[in-house]
Amino acid sequence: MLSQIKAIAFDADDTLWVNEPFFRKAEKEFCELMKDYIDEERCNQFLFEIEMQNLPLYGYGIKPFTLSLIEAAIRFSGGKISIDGINTLIERGKEMLDQPIEILDGIPETLQKLNGDYRLVMATKGDLLDQERKLIKSGLEPYFHHIEIVSDKTEVQYSKLVKHLDVKPEEFLMVGNSVKSDILPVLNIGAHAFHIPFHTTWAHEVVKEPVDHPNYRRLNSASEMLLQLGIV
Amino acid sequence: MLSQIKAIAFDADDTLWVNEPFFRKAEKEFCELMKDYIDEERCNQFLFEIEMQNLPLYGYGIKPFTLSLIEAAIRFSGGKISIDGINTLIERGKEMLDQPIEILDGIPETLQKLNGDYRLVMATKGDLLDQERKLIKSGLEPYFHHIEIVSDKTEVQYSKLVKHLDVKPEEFLMVGNSVKSDILPVLNIGAHAFHIPFHTTWAHEVVKEPVDHPNYRRLNSASEMLLQLGIV
Repeated sequence: MLSQIKAIAFDADDTLWVNEPFFRKAEKEFCELMKDYIDEERCNQFLFEIEMQNLPLYGYGIKPFTLSLIEAAIRFSGGKISIDGINTLIERGKEMLDQPIEILDGIPETLQKLNGDYRLVMATKGDLLDQERKLIKSGLEPYFHHIEIVSDKTEVQYSKLVKHLDVKPEEFLMVGNSVKSDILPVLNIGAHAFHIPFHTTWAHEVVKEPVDHPNYRRLNSASEMLLQLGIV
Repeated sequence: MLSQIKAIAFDADDTLWVNEPFFRKAEKEFCELMKDYIDEERCNQFLFEIEMQNLPLYGYGIKPFTLSLIEAAIRFSGGKISIDGINTLIERGKEMLDQPIEILDGIPETLQKLNGDYRLVMATKGDLLDQERKLIKSGLEPYFHHIEIVSDKTEVQYSKLVKHLDVKPEEFLMVGNSVKSDILPVLNIGAHAFHIPFHTTWAHEVVKEPVDHPNYRRLNSASEMLLQLGIV
Protein backbone atom coordinates (compact mmCIF):
# COMPACT_ATOMS: atom_id res chain seq x y z
CA MET A 1 0.00 0.00 0.00
CA LEU A 2 1.69 3.16 -1.23
CA SER A 3 -0.53 5.23 1.10
CA GLN A 4 1.43 3.92 4.11
CA ILE A 5 4.71 5.47 2.99
CA LYS A 6 6.29 7.98 5.38
CA ALA A 7 9.94 8.13 4.34
CA ILE A 8 11.43 8.15 0.84
CA ALA A 9 15.11 7.53 0.14
CA PHE A 10 16.62 8.58 -3.17
CA ASP A 11 19.70 7.03 -4.64
CA ALA A 12 22.03 9.83 -5.80
CA ASP A 13 24.20 8.91 -8.81
CA ASP A 14 22.14 8.47 -12.01
CA THR A 15 18.93 8.97 -10.04
CA LEU A 16 19.29 12.62 -8.99
CA TRP A 17 22.12 13.53 -11.35
CA VAL A 18 24.25 12.15 -14.18
CA ASN A 19 27.20 10.02 -13.02
CA GLU A 20 27.92 6.80 -14.91
CA PRO A 21 28.61 8.49 -18.29
CA PHE A 22 31.56 10.34 -16.65
CA PHE A 23 33.07 6.98 -15.62
CA ARG A 24 32.45 5.56 -19.10
CA LYS A 25 34.19 8.56 -20.65
CA ALA A 26 37.13 8.16 -18.25
CA GLU A 27 37.37 4.43 -19.08
CA LYS A 28 37.34 5.21 -22.80
CA GLU A 29 40.11 7.78 -22.36
CA PHE A 30 42.07 5.34 -20.22
CA CYS A 31 41.89 2.55 -22.83
CA GLU A 32 42.90 5.07 -25.49
CA LEU A 33 45.96 5.93 -23.33
CA MET A 34 46.69 2.17 -23.09
CA LYS A 35 46.20 1.35 -26.77
CA ASP A 36 49.90 0.58 -27.37
CA TYR A 37 49.71 -2.19 -24.76
CA ILE A 38 46.20 -3.66 -24.92
CA ASP A 39 43.17 -3.53 -27.23
CA GLU A 40 40.07 -1.67 -26.10
CA GLU A 41 37.86 -4.68 -25.41
CA ARG A 42 40.42 -6.46 -23.21
CA CYS A 43 41.31 -3.15 -21.56
CA ASN A 44 37.69 -2.63 -20.50
CA GLN A 45 37.33 -6.24 -19.38
CA PHE A 46 40.54 -6.40 -17.31
CA LEU A 47 39.94 -2.94 -15.85
CA PHE A 48 36.56 -4.17 -14.62
CA GLU A 49 38.25 -7.23 -13.09
CA ILE A 50 40.76 -5.05 -11.24
CA GLU A 51 37.95 -2.80 -9.99
CA MET A 52 36.04 -5.85 -8.72
CA GLN A 53 39.16 -7.22 -7.00
CA ASN A 54 39.69 -3.86 -5.28
CA LEU A 55 36.03 -3.24 -4.38
CA PRO A 56 36.04 -4.95 -0.93
CA LEU A 57 39.14 -2.96 0.08
CA TYR A 58 38.52 0.37 -1.72
CA GLY A 59 34.73 0.68 -1.85
CA TYR A 60 32.89 2.84 -4.40
CA GLY A 61 33.68 6.22 -5.92
CA ILE A 62 36.17 8.28 -7.87
CA LYS A 63 39.20 7.79 -5.57
CA PRO A 64 38.98 3.96 -5.73
CA PHE A 65 38.47 4.28 -9.50
CA THR A 66 41.58 6.46 -9.86
CA LEU A 67 43.69 4.04 -7.79
CA SER A 68 42.42 1.11 -9.87
CA LEU A 69 43.26 2.97 -13.10
CA ILE A 70 46.84 3.55 -11.91
CA GLU A 71 47.19 -0.12 -10.94
CA ALA A 72 45.70 -1.20 -14.29
CA ALA A 73 48.02 1.13 -16.23
CA ILE A 74 51.07 -0.41 -14.53
CA ARG A 75 49.83 -3.98 -15.05
CA PHE A 76 48.62 -3.59 -18.67
CA SER A 77 51.85 -1.91 -19.76
CA GLY A 78 54.07 -4.37 -17.87
CA GLY A 79 55.50 -1.38 -15.97
CA LYS A 80 56.21 0.54 -19.20
CA ILE A 81 53.58 3.27 -18.74
CA SER A 82 55.26 6.68 -18.44
CA ILE A 83 55.18 8.79 -15.28
CA ASP A 84 53.38 11.41 -17.39
CA GLY A 85 50.67 8.82 -17.99
CA ILE A 86 50.30 8.24 -14.22
CA ASN A 87 50.17 11.99 -13.66
CA THR A 88 47.39 12.27 -16.25
CA LEU A 89 45.33 9.67 -14.35
CA ILE A 90 45.76 11.61 -11.08
CA GLU A 91 44.72 14.85 -12.81
CA ARG A 92 41.69 13.22 -14.49
CA GLY A 93 40.60 11.87 -11.11
CA LYS A 94 40.70 15.39 -9.67
CA GLU A 95 38.71 16.72 -12.63
CA MET A 96 36.08 14.03 -12.06
CA LEU A 97 35.79 15.00 -8.40
CA ASP A 98 35.31 18.62 -9.40
CA GLN A 99 32.97 18.21 -12.37
CA PRO A 100 29.71 20.19 -12.62
CA ILE A 101 26.38 18.58 -11.70
CA GLU A 102 23.76 17.71 -14.31
CA ILE A 103 20.46 17.21 -12.51
CA LEU A 104 18.12 14.69 -14.14
CA ASP A 105 14.71 15.58 -15.61
CA GLY A 106 11.87 16.31 -13.21
CA ILE A 107 13.96 15.93 -10.04
CA PRO A 108 13.72 19.43 -8.47
CA GLU A 109 9.95 19.80 -9.05
CA THR A 110 9.27 16.28 -7.76
CA LEU A 111 11.37 16.74 -4.62
CA GLN A 112 9.68 20.07 -3.96
CA LYS A 113 6.20 18.50 -4.14
CA LEU A 114 7.14 15.47 -2.01
CA ASN A 115 9.02 17.50 0.59
CA GLY A 116 6.04 18.49 2.76
CA ASP A 117 4.34 15.08 2.87
CA TYR A 118 7.32 12.73 3.30
CA ARG A 119 10.67 12.65 5.04
CA LEU A 120 13.17 12.62 2.18
CA VAL A 121 16.70 11.29 2.55
CA MET A 122 19.50 10.71 0.09
CA ALA A 123 20.89 7.15 0.37
CA THR A 124 24.16 6.41 -1.38
CA LYS A 125 27.02 3.98 -1.21
CA GLY A 126 29.40 6.54 -2.64
CA ASP A 127 32.01 8.57 -0.87
CA LEU A 128 30.46 10.96 1.71
CA LEU A 129 32.59 14.03 0.95
CA ASP A 130 32.01 13.62 -2.78
CA GLN A 131 28.26 13.01 -2.48
CA GLU A 132 27.84 15.87 -0.01
CA ARG A 133 29.66 18.20 -2.39
CA LYS A 134 27.43 17.09 -5.26
CA LEU A 135 24.29 17.59 -3.17
CA ILE A 136 25.32 21.13 -2.23
CA LYS A 137 26.35 21.99 -5.80
CA SER A 138 23.05 20.61 -7.13
CA GLY A 139 20.99 23.00 -4.99
CA LEU A 140 18.81 20.02 -3.93
CA GLU A 141 20.06 19.98 -0.33
CA PRO A 142 17.07 21.88 1.17
CA TYR A 143 14.70 19.07 0.14
CA PHE A 144 16.55 16.38 2.09
CA HIS A 145 16.34 15.72 5.81
CA HIS A 146 19.82 14.20 5.76
CA ILE A 147 22.24 11.98 3.81
CA GLU A 148 22.46 8.27 4.62
CA ILE A 149 25.77 6.80 3.55
CA VAL A 150 25.91 3.01 3.43
CA SER A 151 29.03 1.01 2.66
CA ASP A 152 27.00 -1.30 0.46
CA LYS A 153 23.32 -1.53 -0.49
CA THR A 154 22.42 -4.90 1.00
CA GLU A 155 19.33 -6.11 2.87
CA VAL A 156 21.21 -5.75 6.16
CA GLN A 157 22.13 -2.15 5.37
CA TYR A 158 18.56 -1.30 4.29
CA SER A 159 17.17 -2.86 7.48
CA LYS A 160 19.52 -0.64 9.48
CA LEU A 161 18.48 2.39 7.44
CA VAL A 162 14.77 1.74 7.97
CA LYS A 163 15.35 1.24 11.72
CA HIS A 164 17.43 4.40 11.81
CA LEU A 165 14.63 6.38 10.11
CA ASP A 166 12.28 5.03 12.78
CA VAL A 167 9.71 3.70 10.25
CA LYS A 168 8.43 0.22 9.43
CA PRO A 169 9.67 -1.42 6.20
CA GLU A 170 6.20 -1.01 4.62
CA GLU A 171 6.40 2.74 5.35
CA PHE A 172 9.67 3.07 3.42
CA LEU A 173 10.12 3.72 -0.31
CA MET A 174 13.44 3.58 -2.14
CA VAL A 175 13.85 5.32 -5.49
CA GLY A 176 16.78 4.50 -7.73
CA ASN A 177 18.20 3.46 -11.06
CA SER A 178 19.90 0.20 -10.05
CA VAL A 179 17.75 -2.94 -9.79
CA LYS A 180 20.57 -4.69 -7.94
CA SER A 181 21.28 -1.96 -5.37
CA ASP A 182 18.12 0.11 -5.09
CA ILE A 183 15.30 -2.35 -5.81
CA LEU A 184 15.85 -6.05 -5.01
CA PRO A 185 17.27 -5.75 -1.44
CA VAL A 186 14.55 -3.19 -0.62
CA LEU A 187 11.71 -5.46 -1.82
CA ASN A 188 13.29 -8.34 0.11
CA ILE A 189 12.91 -6.52 3.44
CA GLY A 190 9.23 -5.76 2.73
CA ALA A 191 9.64 -2.13 1.69
CA HIS A 192 8.62 -0.37 -1.54
CA ALA A 193 10.85 0.39 -4.52
CA PHE A 194 10.44 2.65 -7.55
CA HIS A 195 12.84 1.94 -10.38
CA ILE A 196 13.72 4.85 -12.69
CA PRO A 197 16.11 3.34 -15.23
CA PHE A 198 19.02 5.40 -16.53
CA HIS A 199 20.38 4.85 -20.01
CA THR A 200 23.85 3.80 -18.77
CA THR A 201 24.39 1.13 -16.09
CA TRP A 202 27.71 -0.02 -14.66
CA ALA A 203 28.38 -3.73 -15.41
CA HIS A 204 28.59 -4.38 -11.64
CA GLU A 205 24.97 -3.20 -11.23
CA VAL A 206 23.38 -5.00 -14.20
CA VAL A 207 20.55 -7.45 -13.40
CA LYS A 208 18.98 -9.27 -16.34
CA GLU A 209 15.75 -10.70 -14.86
CA PRO A 210 12.61 -8.52 -14.88
CA VAL A 211 11.22 -7.64 -11.44
CA ASP A 212 7.70 -8.77 -10.52
CA HIS A 213 6.57 -7.71 -7.06
CA PRO A 214 3.47 -5.89 -5.70
CA ASN A 215 5.68 -3.26 -3.99
CA TYR A 216 7.57 -2.50 -7.20
CA ARG A 217 6.96 0.19 -9.84
CA ARG A 218 9.00 0.95 -12.93
CA LEU A 219 8.81 4.63 -13.91
CA ASN A 220 10.10 6.63 -16.87
CA SER A 221 10.98 9.73 -14.84
CA ALA A 222 10.86 11.10 -11.31
CA SER A 223 7.74 13.15 -12.18
CA GLU A 224 5.74 9.90 -12.47
CA MET A 225 6.27 9.36 -8.74
CA LEU A 226 3.69 12.05 -8.04
CA LEU A 227 0.94 10.21 -9.93
CA GLN A 228 1.85 6.90 -8.27
CA LEU A 229 1.72 8.49 -4.81
CA GLY A 230 -1.55 10.30 -5.60
CA ILE A 231 -0.08 13.80 -5.50
CA VAL A 232 -1.43 16.23 -8.09
CA MET B 1 26.36 19.08 34.34
CA LEU B 2 27.69 15.66 33.39
CA SER B 3 24.58 14.06 34.89
CA GLN B 4 22.49 15.38 31.97
CA ILE B 5 24.40 13.39 29.38
CA LYS B 6 22.35 10.93 27.31
CA ALA B 7 24.45 10.29 24.21
CA ILE B 8 28.20 9.81 23.93
CA ALA B 9 30.08 9.95 20.64
CA PHE B 10 33.56 8.46 20.36
CA ASP B 11 36.08 9.53 17.80
CA ALA B 12 37.58 6.42 16.20
CA ASP B 13 41.20 6.82 15.04
CA ASP B 14 43.63 7.24 17.97
CA THR B 15 40.71 7.26 20.43
CA LEU B 16 39.41 3.68 20.04
CA TRP B 17 42.42 2.26 18.19
CA VAL B 18 45.92 3.16 16.98
CA ASN B 19 45.98 5.03 13.65
CA GLU B 20 48.35 7.99 13.32
CA PRO B 21 51.56 5.95 13.89
CA PHE B 22 50.72 3.92 10.74
CA PHE B 23 50.60 7.15 8.70
CA ARG B 24 53.86 8.34 10.29
CA LYS B 25 55.51 5.06 9.39
CA ALA B 26 54.22 5.32 5.82
CA GLU B 27 55.50 8.92 5.56
CA LYS B 28 58.90 7.85 6.83
CA GLU B 29 59.08 5.03 4.30
CA PHE B 30 57.94 7.39 1.57
CA CYS B 31 60.63 9.97 2.35
CA GLU B 32 63.19 7.15 2.45
CA LEU B 33 62.02 6.13 -1.06
CA MET B 34 62.43 9.78 -2.14
CA LYS B 35 65.84 10.34 -0.55
CA ASP B 36 67.65 10.66 -3.92
CA TYR B 37 65.44 13.63 -4.80
CA ILE B 38 64.63 15.45 -1.56
CA ASP B 39 65.86 15.49 2.07
CA GLU B 40 63.62 14.08 4.78
CA GLU B 41 62.62 17.37 6.40
CA ARG B 42 61.55 19.02 3.14
CA CYS B 43 59.90 15.77 2.04
CA ASN B 44 57.71 15.76 5.15
CA GLN B 45 56.96 19.46 4.85
CA PHE B 46 56.03 19.42 1.14
CA LEU B 47 54.07 16.19 1.51
CA PHE B 48 51.97 17.87 4.20
CA GLU B 49 51.42 20.84 1.87
CA ILE B 50 50.21 18.55 -0.93
CA GLU B 51 47.89 16.75 1.52
CA MET B 52 46.45 20.08 2.66
CA GLN B 53 45.94 21.22 -0.95
CA ASN B 54 44.12 17.98 -1.73
CA LEU B 55 42.07 17.85 1.49
CA PRO B 56 39.01 19.83 0.23
CA LEU B 57 38.80 17.58 -2.85
CA TYR B 58 39.92 14.22 -1.43
CA GLY B 59 38.83 14.32 2.22
CA TYR B 60 40.41 12.17 4.95
CA GLY B 61 41.69 8.62 4.96
CA ILE B 62 44.10 6.15 3.40
CA LYS B 63 42.93 6.48 -0.22
CA PRO B 64 43.45 10.28 -0.27
CA PHE B 65 46.81 9.72 1.45
CA THR B 66 47.87 7.18 -1.20
CA LEU B 67 46.84 9.49 -4.06
CA SER B 68 48.75 12.38 -2.43
CA LEU B 69 51.85 10.18 -2.03
CA ILE B 70 51.78 9.31 -5.75
CA GLU B 71 51.38 12.97 -6.67
CA ALA B 72 54.20 13.94 -4.29
CA ALA B 73 56.49 11.22 -5.67
CA ILE B 74 56.00 12.53 -9.21
CA ARG B 75 56.51 16.16 -8.17
CA PHE B 76 59.49 15.63 -5.83
CA SER B 77 61.35 13.51 -8.39
CA GLY B 78 60.52 15.84 -11.29
CA GLY B 79 58.86 12.88 -13.01
CA LYS B 80 61.91 10.63 -12.49
CA ILE B 81 60.37 8.25 -9.93
CA SER B 82 60.20 4.71 -11.35
CA ILE B 83 56.95 2.89 -12.10
CA ASP B 84 58.11 0.32 -9.51
CA GLY B 85 58.10 3.14 -6.98
CA ILE B 86 54.51 4.07 -7.88
CA ASN B 87 53.52 0.42 -7.65
CA THR B 88 55.08 0.24 -4.16
CA LEU B 89 52.93 3.20 -3.05
CA ILE B 90 49.75 1.49 -4.33
CA GLU B 91 50.70 -1.73 -2.53
CA ARG B 92 51.52 0.09 0.74
CA GLY B 93 48.14 1.82 0.56
CA LYS B 94 46.42 -1.56 0.29
CA GLU B 95 48.45 -2.89 3.22
CA MET B 96 47.40 0.11 5.31
CA LEU B 97 43.72 -0.51 4.47
CA ASP B 98 44.12 -4.11 5.55
CA GLN B 99 46.23 -3.70 8.68
CA PRO B 100 45.22 -5.31 11.99
CA ILE B 101 43.50 -3.25 14.70
CA GLU B 102 45.26 -2.30 17.94
CA ILE B 103 42.59 -1.29 20.44
CA LEU B 104 43.70 1.34 22.97
CA ASP B 105 43.91 0.72 26.72
CA GLY B 106 40.69 0.52 28.68
CA ILE B 107 38.38 0.92 25.67
CA PRO B 108 36.42 -2.38 25.67
CA GLU B 109 35.76 -2.38 29.45
CA THR B 110 34.73 1.28 29.40
CA LEU B 111 32.36 0.86 26.44
CA GLN B 112 30.83 -2.19 28.08
CA LYS B 113 30.10 -0.26 31.30
CA LEU B 114 28.74 2.82 29.48
CA ASN B 115 26.65 0.81 27.04
CA GLY B 116 23.56 0.34 29.22
CA ASP B 117 23.32 3.92 30.53
CA TYR B 118 24.10 5.93 27.40
CA ARG B 119 23.51 5.78 23.67
CA LEU B 120 26.98 5.30 22.23
CA VAL B 121 27.88 6.25 18.67
CA MET B 122 31.14 6.32 16.77
CA ALA B 123 31.71 9.69 15.08
CA THR B 124 34.45 9.91 12.51
CA LYS B 125 35.46 12.00 9.54
CA GLY B 126 37.28 9.08 7.94
CA ASP B 127 36.17 6.92 5.08
CA LEU B 128 32.98 4.95 5.93
CA LEU B 129 34.01 1.61 4.42
CA ASP B 130 37.40 1.77 6.12
CA GLN B 131 36.02 2.83 9.51
CA GLU B 132 33.24 0.26 9.36
CA ARG B 133 35.79 -2.46 8.59
CA LYS B 134 37.93 -1.35 11.54
CA LEU B 135 34.92 -1.31 13.86
CA ILE B 136 33.94 -4.86 12.87
CA LYS B 137 37.54 -6.12 13.11
CA SER B 138 37.93 -4.49 16.54
CA GLY B 139 34.99 -6.45 17.98
CA LEU B 140 33.67 -3.17 19.47
CA GLU B 141 30.66 -2.97 17.13
CA PRO B 142 28.10 -4.40 19.62
CA TYR B 143 28.65 -1.43 21.96
CA PHE B 144 27.69 1.19 19.37
CA HIS B 145 24.19 2.17 18.32
CA HIS B 146 25.49 3.29 14.93
CA ILE B 147 28.33 5.04 13.10
CA GLU B 148 28.06 8.74 12.33
CA ILE B 149 30.27 9.75 9.42
CA VAL B 150 30.86 13.47 9.03
CA SER B 151 32.77 15.03 6.16
CA ASP B 152 34.50 17.35 8.60
CA LYS B 153 34.27 17.93 12.35
CA THR B 154 32.97 21.48 12.46
CA GLU B 155 30.37 23.20 14.68
CA VAL B 156 27.81 22.91 11.87
CA GLN B 157 28.43 19.16 11.55
CA TYR B 158 28.24 18.64 15.35
CA SER B 159 24.98 20.60 15.49
CA LYS B 160 23.58 18.30 12.79
CA LEU B 161 24.84 15.26 14.70
CA VAL B 162 23.24 16.36 17.99
CA LYS B 163 19.96 17.10 16.18
CA HIS B 164 20.16 13.75 14.45
CA LEU B 165 20.67 11.97 17.79
CA ASP B 166 17.57 13.80 19.05
CA VAL B 167 19.29 15.17 22.17
CA LYS B 168 20.08 18.70 23.38
CA PRO B 169 23.69 19.92 23.10
CA GLU B 170 24.04 19.77 26.91
CA GLU B 171 23.00 16.10 26.79
CA PHE B 172 25.81 15.25 24.36
CA LEU B 173 29.39 14.24 25.19
CA MET B 174 32.16 13.87 22.61
CA VAL B 175 35.26 11.81 23.45
CA GLY B 176 38.38 12.12 21.34
CA ASN B 177 42.09 12.71 20.98
CA SER B 178 42.03 15.84 18.80
CA VAL B 179 41.46 19.20 20.49
CA LYS B 180 40.80 20.77 17.09
CA SER B 181 38.29 18.21 15.82
CA ASP B 182 36.80 16.53 18.89
CA ILE B 183 36.89 19.22 21.58
CA LEU B 184 36.71 22.89 20.49
CA PRO B 185 33.76 22.73 18.04
CA VAL B 186 31.85 20.56 20.54
CA LEU B 187 32.36 23.03 23.44
CA ASN B 188 31.36 25.86 21.07
CA ILE B 189 27.89 24.38 20.52
CA GLY B 190 27.32 23.98 24.29
CA ALA B 191 28.02 20.26 24.52
CA HIS B 192 30.55 18.36 26.66
CA ALA B 193 33.96 17.11 25.57
CA PHE B 194 36.45 14.67 27.11
CA HIS B 195 39.94 14.88 25.71
CA ILE B 196 42.05 11.71 25.86
CA PRO B 197 45.39 12.72 24.28
CA PHE B 198 47.26 10.24 22.10
CA HIS B 199 51.05 10.33 21.89
CA THR B 200 51.08 11.09 18.15
CA THR B 201 49.01 13.90 16.58
CA TRP B 202 48.84 14.77 12.88
CA ALA B 203 50.16 18.31 12.19
CA HIS B 204 46.74 19.23 10.74
CA GLU B 205 45.11 18.51 14.11
CA VAL B 206 47.61 20.23 16.41
CA VAL B 207 46.26 23.04 18.63
CA LYS B 208 48.74 24.80 20.92
CA GLU B 209 46.49 26.69 23.37
CA PRO B 210 45.31 24.90 26.51
CA VAL B 211 41.52 24.47 26.82
CA ASP B 212 39.70 26.05 29.75
CA HIS B 213 35.95 25.41 29.79
CA PRO B 214 33.50 24.06 32.41
CA ASN B 215 32.28 21.35 29.99
CA TYR B 216 35.81 20.13 29.30
CA ARG B 217 37.80 17.31 30.94
CA ARG B 218 41.26 16.07 30.06
CA LEU B 219 41.72 12.37 30.85
CA ASN B 220 44.67 9.99 30.73
CA SER B 221 42.70 7.00 29.51
CA ALA B 222 39.17 5.94 28.60
CA SER B 223 38.78 4.20 31.99
CA GLU B 224 38.81 7.62 33.72
CA MET B 225 35.51 8.41 31.98
CA LEU B 226 33.74 6.08 34.40
CA LEU B 227 34.89 8.06 37.44
CA GLN B 228 33.96 11.37 35.79
CA LEU B 229 30.49 10.10 34.95
CA GLY B 230 29.99 8.61 38.43
CA ILE B 231 29.98 4.97 37.28
CA VAL B 232 31.74 2.51 39.59
